[in-house]
Amino acid sequence: MELETYNIPVNVGFSVPVRANRDSNPDGTIVNVTGVKIGGNEVVVIAGPCSIESSEQLYETAKVVKQGGARIMRGGAFKPRTSPYSFQGLGEEGLKIMRHVGDETGLPIVTEVMDTRHMEMVADYADMLQIGSRNMHNYPLLKEAGLVNKPILLKRGMMATIEEFLLAAEYILNQGNTQVVLCERGIRTFETTTRNTLDLNAVPVLKRLTHLPVIVDPSHGTGVRWIVPSMAKAAIASGADGLIVEVHYKPETALSDGNQSLYPEEFGPLMTDLKKIALAIGRDLPLP
Amino acid sequence: MELETYNIPVNVGFSVPVRANRDSNPDGTIVNVTGVKIGGNEVVVIAGPCSIESSEQLYETAKVVKQGGARIMRGGAFKPRTSPYSFQGLGEEGLKIMRHVGDETGLPIVTEVMDTRHMEMVADYADMLQIGSRNMHNYPLLKEAGLVNKPILLKRGMMATIEEFLLAAEYILNQGNTQVVLCERGIRTFETTTRNTLDLNAVPVLKRLTHLPVIVDPSHGTGVRWIVPSMAKAAIASGADGLIVEVHYKPETALSDGNQSLYPEEFGPLMTDLKKIALAIGRDLPLP
Amino acid sequence: MELETYNIPVNVGFSVPVRANRDSNPDGTIVNVTGVKIGGNEVVVIAGPCSIESSEQLYETAKVVKQGGARIMRGGAFKPRTSPYSFQGLGEEGLKIMRHVGDETGLPIVTEVMDTRHMEMVADYADMLQIGSRNMHNYPLLKEAGLVNKPILLKRGMMATIEEFLLAAEYILNQGNTQVVLCERGIRTFETTTRNTLDLNAVPVLKRLTHLPVIVDPSHGTGVRWIVPSMAKAAIASGADGLIVEVHYKPETALSDGNQSLYPEEFGPLMTDLKKIALAIGRDLPLP
Amino acid sequence: MELETYNIPVNVGFSVPVRANRDSNPDGTIVNVTGVKIGGNEVVVIAGPCSIESSEQLYETAKVVKQGGARIMRGGAFKPRTSPYSFQGLGEEGLKIMRHVGDETGLPIVTEVMDTRHMEMVADYADMLQIGSRNMHNYPLLKEAGLVNKPILLKRGMMATIEEFLLAAEYILNQGNTQVVLCERGIRTFETTTRNTLDLNAVPVLKRLTHLPVIVDPSHGTGVRWIVPSMAKAAIASGADGLIVEVHYKPETALSDGNQSLYPEEFGPLMTDLKKIALAIGRDLPLP
Repeated sequence: MELETYNIPVNVGFSVPVRANRDSNPDGTIVNVTGVKIGGNEVVVIAGPCSIESSEQLYETAKVVKQGGARIMRGGAFKPRTSPYSFQGLGEEGLKIMRHVGDETGLPIVTEVMDTRHMEMVADYADMLQIGSRNMHNYPLLKEAGLVNKPILLKRGMMATIEEFLLAAEYILNQGNTQVVLCERGIRTFETTTRNTLDLNAVPVLKRLTHLPVIVDPSHGTGVRWIVPSMAKAAIASGADGLIVEVHYKPETALSDGNQSLYPEEFGPLMTDLKKIALAIGRDLPLP
Repeated sequence: MELETYNIPVNVGFSVPVRANRDSNPDGTIVNVTGVKIGGNEVVVIAGPCSIESSEQLYETAKVVKQGGARIMRGGAFKPRTSPYSFQGLGEEGLKIMRHVGDETGLPIVTEVMDTRHMEMVADYADMLQIGSRNMHNYPLLKEAGLVNKPILLKRGMMATIEEFLLAAEYILNQGNTQVVLCERGIRTFETTTRNTLDLNAVPVLKRLTHLPVIVDPSHGTGVRWIVPSMAKAAIASGADGLIVEVHYKPETALSDGNQSLYPEEFGPLMTDLKKIALAIGRDLPLP
Repeated sequence: MELETYNIPVNVGFSVPVRANRDSNPDGTIVNVTGVKIGGNEVVVIAGPCSIESSEQLYETAKVVKQGGARIMRGGAFKPRTSPYSFQGLGEEGLKIMRHVGDETGLPIVTEVMDTRHMEMVADYADMLQIGSRNMHNYPLLKEAGLVNKPILLKRGMMATIEEFLLAAEYILNQGNTQVVLCERGIRTFETTTRNTLDLNAVPVLKRLTHLPVIVDPSHGTGVRWIVPSMAKAAIASGADGLIVEVHYKPETALSDGNQSLYPEEFGPLMTDLKKIALAIGRDLPLP
Repeated sequence: MELETYNIPVNVGFSVPVRANRDSNPDGTIVNVTGVKIGGNEVVVIAGPCSIESSEQLYETAKVVKQGGARIMRGGAFKPRTSPYSFQGLGEEGLKIMRHVGDETGLPIVTEVMDTRHMEMVADYADMLQIGSRNMHNYPLLKEAGLVNKPILLKRGMMATIEEFLLAAEYILNQGNTQVVLCERGIRTFETTTRNTLDLNAVPVLKRLTHLPVIVDPSHGTGVRWIVPSMAKAAIASGADGLIVEVHYKPETALSDGNQSLYPEEFGPLMTDLKKIALAIGRDLPLP
């Protein structure tokens, strides 16, 4: 899809909200995460573990993803777990580890915030704040995210329509924070072979309707390690501005999402493959 | 379904969490909302408007629902609206109106809380706190609800499995608050004629798996006023311990959910019909 | 819902096709299955095994369901099985058994037809022909069903919208066969605790949009024996004109659907309960 | 995904049926459609209109798609339309037109068969027979397809799980016809912006579980013309062995699916883009 196609009027059955609407910024928004630009011609890969578990785990994983070409590191300190008896994350201790590893490696860091009471604290440590799938409909949280001075990674609710996704972004934009990246991460369907159904249709649709950058999470979108590389390639081919991928230095020991985390030795070759796809569609993915 | 059927072991493909599990209280929990008991032989109907809009609106509606036989009044002061440009609720001002109307009419009141920062304040005004569908996966909010000294009405996420619903209740129970009522309110499917698909299968399933009371919201479960009475009757027949129904004194002027709110003159006849169903299955629904 | 409510115009977002439209027969169609009338004030229960397995099995089950108050017997000779290695039905041999048992017990019989080439043969044996969920979109089969001189039981596709369901009926009506009964039997959703999600919302919606009788299949709609009674009651309360229920004289030996088939001793008590619900909503369910 | 990954055992929660199972032919099946090989290193594109409408329409469209690099022509003579009042296809007259245009252009032709009674006739005209999404669960049709001496294009049911899809293929394979190509064409979800949700996760999953070739239909998988190119590229990147794309010489006049059919001038540039993706993943897509 060429940029000029954005000018063709489309009928998607609803009104795109005014601030998220591509019309309000036809050239597209570039989101700047402490120097890393998302939304330009270069595809950006965010990588790291699901949860921050220890200094060693995060540091070893960070080295791997940096070496592979990731530009931003992910990792969760506050984890929205389905069961109250699952590991809930290290909390502020995890944020401290993450900040330290980010400073050591030079990788900006993105981490999830789940509670309005933690917004300021998380913003003090992180370069980018994630609002996760389970909180896409958490409007007080979205409003707070609109008041913070950090870019926001907004994941699509697993049950959210594209219209609702855009309206969630509008909640943030409407408070004044214009640095929002959208992330398709799979929706819930009747299919049970995969954890979610990655809705790549959403990528060209969102790129057309909004000026905000759009990235894809093939880890949650599949839930299965060996499917991740295929869908990572497909996501870039579909026009995504980037990816967020789970990598763990020892997936079989992970406290969460081990089944969908790539092994360290898988990450580099995947990045090489992704660069080829990026070039094939006229973009780039610079590698170290 | 007789009580003894609860003793037959069932295989539902997952482990019911320990505190929500019926095994932990085989006779079933009775939740006491300022004197109104949910979970016993009597079916309890909660009714009122979607949003609190004014003293007059709430008071006039409260009189109608009380006269019809509702035992608890509903009404929202903090509204989780899909669009940031929709009416967001009156906030604390709405809570004050609600408390006043509750005191005037003698009806206990239930209202939604969306933000951990508001938990205490809302608990100061309300007799029961609702955690809405969009926040069923909001774990910090669930944990706070587990620490408050008021009964909780937990609505099923619109795309939550029954397993996830039980685990959300477990988050509350695990903090020490055992006064939790579950509410089936429709799930999201491909069908577009109705706003949601009311999953009444969930009623007998939940009654078997957990000791917590189970009620049904036929207003959100259908989204269409003229379907509400049929599904209210079906819900009681399926074994629900109660209903939560939207009624508005002037639906066509409602600031939210007018299309699914009953007219005042529809509520009384519906209650008469519901009583017949309750009696037909060996329960009761006392009317004034 | 009273009959007069059918006169209130409704907007469901699509045009109801002309022959299925309630406007074309506001008083509602009565479908006559060899003397048993579906669509009138009396609720009709169809019962029997999933598959015809033997003379003994069918005859013993038929006696049970007749004694309990069923008015029509169900049983499959041609079975649409997901796996080619599953029992595929006895074919014409099964039809002969069914005709014989029907004649012995005086119960009209309904059985599924899956192949346009078998339409005439099946019509020679059966009193009513079923088009199953997997064939609701099989338009050549629907057209043939429109040309046969027997009433049709059309089941909703497991992922068919209400609009598509009405259009499938229209295929039959448009060929001249006006004796069509619609059957809600559960739709496919993300929920996995139950085999399907029984969409009882569809009952009042269909009753309003079309003049055709509407029945419910709580066996396929739940997939679990112990949920069937609750949903059978809910279906009658929602306004269904009847039910189709799986009963097997020895469910644990059934060649198909044993898990959702009622035991013989469960059927009679269920019918007694259903009659109470029918009376509570102003209808009847005459028992022997 | 490299071929060797097929050797890693995977747990998908069900048993892959024996004949469809990759274990029964680890190197993968090549399906030969009158000389065009699907399943090898070269990506194959099938293109043409939804319905055959006239000689002129088909011939003009065929020239365009051949010139663009399509290797097989698609077009429907028997159309499974949701409404009985929609254009139902030209029937055998359409098949004659298609055969003639195929012979003129040298393109093998694939067309849908919907009725067991037509299997032989359609096989007389076509090079490949399509079983459409609405008939994936039509087991008598699958069995007949297993007896015919032509390759089969089996589309995934819009409501079918991957397990059911493999079992549908097994019905064909089990009758002796081993020339089966699977086609992902979008599944039905709650999202309404697109006609279906294209499930590209299914491509790597199917490639791993079965030896049969897998292609993708981005036209039905999106339902919107301007989304087709992005998803066509994504499909190739995900590992699909080919595509089936709707192209019409005058989409605005099409009797079916005009909204999702590419304009003639869009097809050539798309093919050039697709070749780049194919090369980027180590495959090829030879162009004229």
